[in-house]
Amino acid sequence: MITVPFKNKGTFLYVEIYEFIKQEITAGNIKYGEKLPSKRSLANHLAVSVNTVDTAYSQLVAEGYIEAIAKKGFYICEIDSYFLAEKKVAANNKNFPINSELINIDFSPNAIDQRIFPYEPFRKIFKSTFNEYDVSLLNKPDIQGDLGLRKALVELLYRSRGVRCHENQIIIGSGTDHLLQILDLIWGRNKAIILENPVYLKAFHIFEKMGNPVISVDIDEKGIQIEPLKNYSDGAVYVTPSHQFPLGISMPIDRRIKLLNYANREEAIYIIEDDYDSEFRYNEKPLPSLQSIDKNGKVIYIGTFSKSIAPSIRISYMVLPEILLKTYLATADEISSPVSSLEQKMIAAFISEGMFEKHVNKMRKVYKEKRIVLMNALKQWGGGVKITGENAGHHLLVQLDNGLTEEAMYRRAMAQGVRVYPVSPYFINGVPERYKSMVLLGYASLTDQEIFDGIGILKKVWSL
Amino acid sequence: MITVPFKNKGTFLYVEIYEFIKQEITAGNIKYGEKLPSKRSLANHLAVSVNTVDTAYSQLVAEGYIEAIAKKGFYICEIDSYFLAEKKVAANNKNFPINSELINIDFSPNAIDQRIFPYEPFRKIFKSTFNEYDVSLLNKPDIQGDLGLRKALVELLYRSRGVRCHENQIIIGSGTDHLLQILDLIWGRNKAIILENPVYLKAFHIFEKMGNPVISVDIDEKGIQIEPLKNYSDGAVYVTPSHQFPLGISMPIDRRIKLLNYANREEAIYIIEDDYDSEFRYNEKPLPSLQSIDKNGKVIYIGTFSKSIAPSIRISYMVLPEILLKTYLATADEISSPVSSLEQKMIAAFISEGMFEKHVNKMRKVYKEKRIVLMNALKQWGGGVKITGENAGHHLLVQLDNGLTEEAMYRRAMAQGVRVYPVSPYFINGVPERYKSMVLLGYASLTDQEIFDGIGILKKVWSL
Repeated sequence: MITVPFKNKGTFLYVEIYEFIKQEITAGNIKYGEKLPSKRSLANHLAVSVNTVDTAYSQLVAEGYIEAIAKKGFYICEIDSYFLAEKKVAANNKNFPINSELINIDFSPNAIDQRIFPYEPFRKIFKSTFNEYDVSLLNKPDIQGDLGLRKALVELLYRSRGVRCHENQIIIGSGTDHLLQILDLIWGRNKAIILENPVYLKAFHIFEKMGNPVISVDIDEKGIQIEPLKNYSDGAVYVTPSHQFPLGISMPIDRRIKLLNYANREEAIYIIEDDYDSEFRYNEKPLPSLQSIDKNGKVIYIGTFSKSIAPSIRISYMVLPEILLKTYLATADEISSPVSSLEQKMIAAFISEGMFEKHVNKMRKVYKEKRIVLMNALKQWGGGVKITGENAGHHLLVQLDNGLTEEAMYRRAMAQGVRVYPVSPYFINGVPERYKSMVLLGYASLTDQEIFDGIGILKKVWSL
Repeated sequence: MITVPFKNKGTFLYVEIYEFIKQEITAGNIKYGEKLPSKRSLANHLAVSVNTVDTAYSQLVAEGYIEAIAKKGFYICEIDSYFLAEKKVAANNKNFPINSELINIDFSPNAIDQRIFPYEPFRKIFKSTFNEYDVSLLNKPDIQGDLGLRKALVELLYRSRGVRCHENQIIIGSGTDHLLQILDLIWGRNKAIILENPVYLKAFHIFEKMGNPVISVDIDEKGIQIEPLKNYSDGAVYVTPSHQFPLGISMPIDRRIKLLNYANREEAIYIIEDDYDSEFRYNEKPLPSLQSIDKNGKVIYIGTFSKSIAPSIRISYMVLPEILLKTYLATADEISSPVSSLEQKMIAAFISEGMFEKHVNKMRKVYKEKRIVLMNALKQWGGGVKITGENAGHHLLVQLDNGLTEEAMYRRAMAQGVRVYPVSPYFINGVPERYKSMVLLGYASLTDQEIFDGIGILKKVWSL
């Protein structure tokens, strides 16, 4: 007869019975085929209610340790003994620390000024958005994205970028990466992806990982070169015309038209226009997007809120030409949308209530001032410095001709707690001579003082 | 001389000048190489300030329509004429309506009861989470997921599922789909994916799209069969042991150990345990997870908040064995996390403040009652009906033996505004004889009345 050593340490009696019998079976003390005492007799033996034993037994049945055979009783099931593989397994408590050097001044090109984030507007919007009357807040998000957000974007993109589209052409993604993955699903692995070189590295990694043939075409002072493209008649050309990343070139109208004409002549060629920071142009009004010039449905327009609101907002958008839209609807629809419904609705309200444009204007003003501070600070450096890409975005580039290598520039700066961003990692097959000793300086997240101090430190360590 | 027909309809003068000259160039009225009037002379001619002309000219320069040649003036750039492809492009205003039949009673297995969503707790949590003092709210989310959420999950998963892991082993994803995509990145396309058949279709589609060899192994009354697995020595076995989707079988301990032992013997075999609705078990306490039995780092544990909170919460989690974690850190880190920082922090608070378990208990109680209502309602049907998978989750299965086909069951029900979910689409190579005339009935989102009425209608239309 089974004698359960009740410890009554707060656990239910039935749990103790269940655990005890389970151990006995696992340990092999009760063997396959053996019969358990009837519920009643075990209950009497343990001086517990029959119900208690019944609960314990049914848990054991549910987990497959014992089976109930009608009119006969409860029998132990056949259970293999667990096989422990020889190979050592590392302990569970190791840490995998993220590389975190001590940086005092970080000229990151990807940061924003967190001091001007519109907390109060978002609090208001949450209140009005998050309510019992909108059950769609709880439903799985629409695969293509919240309709309200797509409608708001149709207006916004037309006003700000001249983009003409219908809400059905818009796909909301959880970041540019995600949208590129969707394009990959639409096209399949055989579509060649032609990247401008240097390039936004994530685009390169995604397509490489996806297994597409990835081709890189060098840019010149006007952006991606057209002649090399003409070797390809089936593929997608990924470009950043408003503000080439990382070099900051804005593609002049002539090159834009040449690029479009190339796509117009090749049925199977599409252009991916990544307009990642077009909101931030300081001297003139933003350049019209490729999509706004395109009349043949050749341009896939991609934008994001990472720069214009915050990198934590995992919402980006893509305008698909109708021809691709049909393939999208046919292929991508089995995969759920990763984008939070709540945030989609909050951003939709943020835009349609006019707060977004107000916020972007404010940010542009702030960044424009920071940029002036940076440009003035750079005057301390005197000659031997080439400054480029300063007309837009959140960063500019500086290039030295005093023989200091890019790596030396990086190391000497880091040694003083100043982080700069070398340009070479953005080149797919090594950095050409004319881009040597060049680094990115982002200024969006820094204070005027930090910019001034940082440039001062760089002057010293780079001996300018 | 250029004469701009000012319409002064609120637009800036410089914009009108800029637009006019742009048109003239595009139309070919001013040609490549031609010189524009000096700013001063055009300003005099148009009776506007030199500044106005200057702004217009610099916009034209920025866009590449004209160039400034030092000491000489402004000249028209060479611009290709835009090539219009012949092929017709559809108009932009077509609609792509989503198929929306009139359903009165939907026995969806994927819905939840929206009436018990914890709005008030989430409002509180938003207030405490969304504040100026946590800048990480604005930063790009940690690639692996919010540390607070991962720590909360370590506790929760141990308490509720016996899962033992370190927060560094947890990866937060935007849904099961996303986590499977990450596994695919870790393994690459050559890893065979072995799916239980029938199966959660998205898993099938994702791996198929990713290009992995996908193998299906039939399940028997205990879950996936082990013998057929032994043909494979390199692959990942995707299973839903707690509550097989769609058949609702819970895998008994013997089969669990056989499955683990198979993996333990094959170095390159892993098991993906999708524990999608383990919170919802009604007769006994939840079965221990495979991961909790695994001692060899063979089980990848996946869970989600879609069922336990809401399908709109795009947050799921994966516990990686350490061996895979290293590969993950090496490969997946170039791709940004798609998961909203704000929601990660809100869910973290929801869990660590004990609200999550409270909510799940409430839901379990509600679903348990609905389930009783459904089981009672099903008694109207009398014989000729087999009911399975009723012990857990949000749905059960009914099978008829009155000769009615699955399709007939579906159509007749739909004709009366009742939606049921045929089982055949979940089978990868056609449905075997023993699963004919079988449909899923989900009850989570229905009221008692709807359940009762729905079952009544089905009794009629299925002539039971």
